[in-house]
Amino acid sequence: MPSLRVALAQVNSTVGDIPGNAAAVRHWSRAAADAGAHLVAFPEMMLTGYPIEDLVFRNSFVAASRAALRTLAADLAADGLGDLAVVVGYVDADGPAPTSSDAVPGSGRRDASALLFGGEVAATYFKHHLPNYGVFDEDRYFEPGDSLTVVRLGGVDVALTVCEDLWQAGGPFAAARRAGVGLVVNINASPYELNKDDLRLSLVKRRAAEAGATIAYVNTVGGQDELVFDGDSMIVTAAGELLTRAGQFTTELLVHDLELPVAESTAGPAGPVSAPPRASGESPRVEQRHDEEMAIKRVVVGGEPRPLTDGPAVGGIAERVTDEAEIWSALTLGLHDYVEKNGFRSVVFGLSGGIDSAVVAAIAVDALGPQRVVAVSMPSGYSSTHSRDDAADLAKRTGLDYRGEPIQPMVDAFLANMSLSGLAVENLQARVRGVILMALSNQEGHLVLTTGNKSELAVGYSTLYGDSVGGFNPLKDVPKTMVWRLAKWRNADAARRGGEPPIPENSIVKPPSAELRPGQVDSDSLPDYEVLDAILAGYIDGDQGRDDLIAAGHDVALVDRVLRMVDLAEYKRRQSAPGTKISIKAFGRDRRLPITNRFREGLPM
Amino acid sequence: MPSLRVALAQVNSTVGDIPGNAAAVRHWSRAAADAGAHLVAFPEMMLTGYPIEDLVFRNSFVAASRAALRTLAADLAADGLGDLAVVVGYVDADGPAPTSSDAVPGSGRRDASALLFGGEVAATYFKHHLPNYGVFDEDRYFEPGDSLTVVRLGGVDVALTVCEDLWQAGGPFAAARRAGVGLVVNINASPYELNKDDLRLSLVKRRAAEAGATIAYVNTVGGQDELVFDGDSMIVTAAGELLTRAGQFTTELLVHDLELPVAESTAGPAGPVSAPPRASGESPRVEQRHDEEMAIKRVVVGGEPRPLTDGPAVGGIAERVTDEAEIWSALTLGLHDYVEKNGFRSVVFGLSGGIDSAVVAAIAVDALGPQRVVAVSMPSGYSSTHSRDDAADLAKRTGLDYRGEPIQPMVDAFLANMSLSGLAVENLQARVRGVILMALSNQEGHLVLTTGNKSELAVGYSTLYGDSVGGFNPLKDVPKTMVWRLAKWRNADAARRGGEPPIPENSIVKPPSAELRPGQVDSDSLPDYEVLDAILAGYIDGDQGRDDLIAAGHDVALVDRVLRMVDLAEYKRRQSAPGTKISIKAFGRDRRLPITNRFREGLPM
Repeated sequence: MPSLRVALAQVNSTVGDIPGNAAAVRHWSRAAADAGAHLVAFPEMMLTGYPIEDLVFRNSFVAASRAALRTLAADLAADGLGDLAVVVGYVDADGPAPTSSDAVPGSGRRDASALLFGGEVAATYFKHHLPNYGVFDEDRYFEPGDSLTVVRLGGVDVALTVCEDLWQAGGPFAAARRAGVGLVVNINASPYELNKDDLRLSLVKRRAAEAGATIAYVNTVGGQDELVFDGDSMIVTAAGELLTRAGQFTTELLVHDLELPVAESTAGPAGPVSAPPRASGESPRVEQRHDEEMAIKRVVVGGEPRPLTDGPAVGGIAERVTDEAEIWSALTLGLHDYVEKNGFRSVVFGLSGGIDSAVVAAIAVDALGPQRVVAVSMPSGYSSTHSRDDAADLAKRTGLDYRGEPIQPMVDAFLANMSLSGLAVENLQARVRGVILMALSNQEGHLVLTTGNKSELAVGYSTLYGDSVGGFNPLKDVPKTMVWRLAKWRNADAARRGGEPPIPENSIVKPPSAELRPGQVDSDSLPDYEVLDAILAGYIDGDQGRDDLIAAGHDVALVDRVLRMVDLAEYKRRQSAPGTKISIKAFGRDRRLPITNRFREGLPM
Repeated sequence: MPSLRVALAQVNSTVGDIPGNAAAVRHWSRAAADAGAHLVAFPEMMLTGYPIEDLVFRNSFVAASRAALRTLAADLAADGLGDLAVVVGYVDADGPAPTSSDAVPGSGRRDASALLFGGEVAATYFKHHLPNYGVFDEDRYFEPGDSLTVVRLGGVDVALTVCEDLWQAGGPFAAARRAGVGLVVNINASPYELNKDDLRLSLVKRRAAEAGATIAYVNTVGGQDELVFDGDSMIVTAAGELLTRAGQFTTELLVHDLELPVAESTAGPAGPVSAPPRASGESPRVEQRHDEEMAIKRVVVGGEPRPLTDGPAVGGIAERVTDEAEIWSALTLGLHDYVEKNGFRSVVFGLSGGIDSAVVAAIAVDALGPQRVVAVSMPSGYSSTHSRDDAADLAKRTGLDYRGEPIQPMVDAFLANMSLSGLAVENLQARVRGVILMALSNQEGHLVLTTGNKSELAVGYSTLYGDSVGGFNPLKDVPKTMVWRLAKWRNADAARRGGEPPIPENSIVKPPSAELRPGQVDSDSLPDYEVLDAILAGYIDGDQGRDDLIAAGHDVALVDRVLRMVDLAEYKRRQSAPGTKISIKAFGRDRRLPITNRFREGLPM
């Protein structure tokens, strides 16, 4: 059996930064060559970033991707890396480069993987299974590929596949078995969801068995608007053995030696092998595409396998972490990359002393360092002393830039000139705070963060253009009960490391309140958050209806009240800031509901 | 040839209001029967409204649609309408009604058409071609049907089809030719775009020729969030003759007698007829699905054709109107339905004396009547006298509820407590106005309208949480140059009808200005709107790149500047209010771009 040293480049690319992404490929390819690798694999759409959305309709964008791929192949050879096989994702199109507007927008676009070798684009493969659920709209953007590409490299047959190909039975992996390949390289841009890493490993094992081949799975890492990619790259043998696995939310080059079967001089076993039946519940949200048998295209690059140098390369197996640690890393990286990739120097937000803004403060400080974080206390006449004390305490613990802007003079100016009462006065206070934060943003250049959690966003417990102002919301997909868990975890983690817990204990234990009228607490308007979050998880994440929720044991009147609040708050969510997705269904492109919607479950039909 | 009296119910349904929509079907079915019709056709998804988006994933919703369809069939018979064939759109699912959460969400859902007769659901058809471009996400929601349903009614074979089936060659219309049908009923929820009506007529003619049958095309009418449906229902013979055509944006029942060929006792011509090749440029944005030959399901309802009663029924052919008249109707109906379907009594907005808010005022008054429209003048120290005069003049002309709320005291309160300068002060004024409008909304219950036009939204020439506040934006998809055209048209139309032109001439002719600093005019920051709108039309509506725009004759530096402004304003658009789509590509679900995006055309690669 020949040995192949494989490197998985779990790295961060930026949407649209084609030159910067190409430079990253050259940098990490050099590192892979220095480690003696024969092949290095980069993530899906490495050259363009992912997802590029409607940029794919612009011919100039697709032409830039194609041109950059050819230039990259030449540059790698010029760098002395011509004998390294570099697998890289990019966007391609059928036919000649569509540089003129005559080309039909969107037609013939491909989510592609290329293998670069010897200064050339030696082989290409087009993604076969296109996800069109959740946050994905790939049927809108791409044509599916209908053939498998197999590259003979150092005596091993290597098949190229892309992301969703792995999540569906049949298609490329069944074709890989027919082709008798030794290795399948699967390049990914697979967004983070809590617990998705467990699902991923079992899927890679299942597909490895199906293909009868080792799978090298590489995923991108980094934040892109609503999404954060967690890496979690790995190599699994046909027998289901996990050989090596990268961490989550880390940039790293995973290098591992593989003993792989020698490619036969003719293709695989005789005749087609039918795909195994799809396992029940395998990928429930995914429509099963009718798989015709895929053609197999074969390419040979290089000659005999180079002998391995420098002793064996063994990638480690990164330890799994707790849910809270995983989510904290997701939120920190998501915020960091939104700030960095959009060119902001600093962030600003209102620090009330409550739990949400305290957790946002801790995330921001972890992501950016305290000197890039501005927190503003904006007390009103209804703000409690403990709120201000807790905010100041957090500022002291974290070292962020802490300021005070009392709102009462501005609130009074409105009240003196308009006849307002009740809810209008409550919202006015929140909106004056919003104006203050936006003024600081305009004056000093900070990105404004909004701090509403998923539970509040679900039921509309926020003031539009008030506490909802901001360009990014780190807690957008974090239920209130998880906000508390994160706070406790972060403090305990600090203590464990011998550092100072950033979040004042009082912010964690006190009853949550918006403090917009005397003595107000959230429980005046909302059920207990444990109960609320359970109903919301069923209704939003699970698409359960009223009857399902009642059958699950929830109070009928409460279910009716919560569902109505969620439905009526859709208009607020439509104008909400983006924030990092961590759940199976986040608000945003993941969940698309009409604002105008009179469906009320439980009403007579 | 037997005669069939066909009624097309071009009516307005509401998303989620299944009982209300079913009641509308009964009401208009009664009207069709009173007119002696044998068959009445309602639009796509009449029972549920369209588009239902992710509501389709809720089993309770699909179950409600299915149950309502059966109830409707029985109710129609109980109404004495059992011998009227009623074609109606709804959402269906495969297998037993998926009332439990065990069912796989989203799988086996169908965009369906049913023919109700004799108290029963006599036949069903599932939409074959699913649009997944522009505002449509139907691959996300539905499984495509793979058979054609042919109903023998009064001696005529009638095929059922749905919307997008008409926009693609092959599939159901080719199958209809093979089946030898006399009539194809095509039910639609086809959103308005300027000039789409012209395209529609030619498509119906082409498909009628392809099917060798008369086509009865019925489209819904009314507003739903970003979309407005324009009706434009029609009947066209196999020979391409337009027999009758409804108006746009009108609720009406179009009744027409058809002479149709007697159905043969065996199915159509011998053997399959292959589909004609797809015409070049036919539906350029649409991916062509591979059409296997569709199975044909045949159903017979009723007996011999009833003789026609009450003399011949002849629907008229509605006259086409100018672009401005068409758009005005679209914007008026879009706003009206957003207000009514969401239960608002009134609207409020800032009336500056400028052209945008003046046109919004005229639209609102036309949509709702002056007594439901509140306009607020919010002058600052930089507001000109003519601005206030023009606003007051418009108020007098239209009779709307006009109020004044000077902003200087509130602006001064912020300036006294914060150190602000330049852009921060300009934006502060706009945000104080936003707070005032939201306070009036909270206090009095009005829906806030925002008045930014498409050109401003494109280049980000607005203040987030300032002039952009609001739940709905009538001008969201209207370029500035079209705003002026609309104003002139509306005034001329009033004069033609002998009424008072609503918009002060001065609001139309003066140079546009945000009046946020002394002497400011839009042309300080933006190119001439004629030039700007031409670049924007290419870049946004046409997905043209930098080179295309330069080749079209635009100034290089200007193209670079405008493209950069558009790219950098994506974060503002993401938080913008919905507004009525009138163009081929509106901001919103029609155009999906990343916020984090470093692609800058013209930079070295």
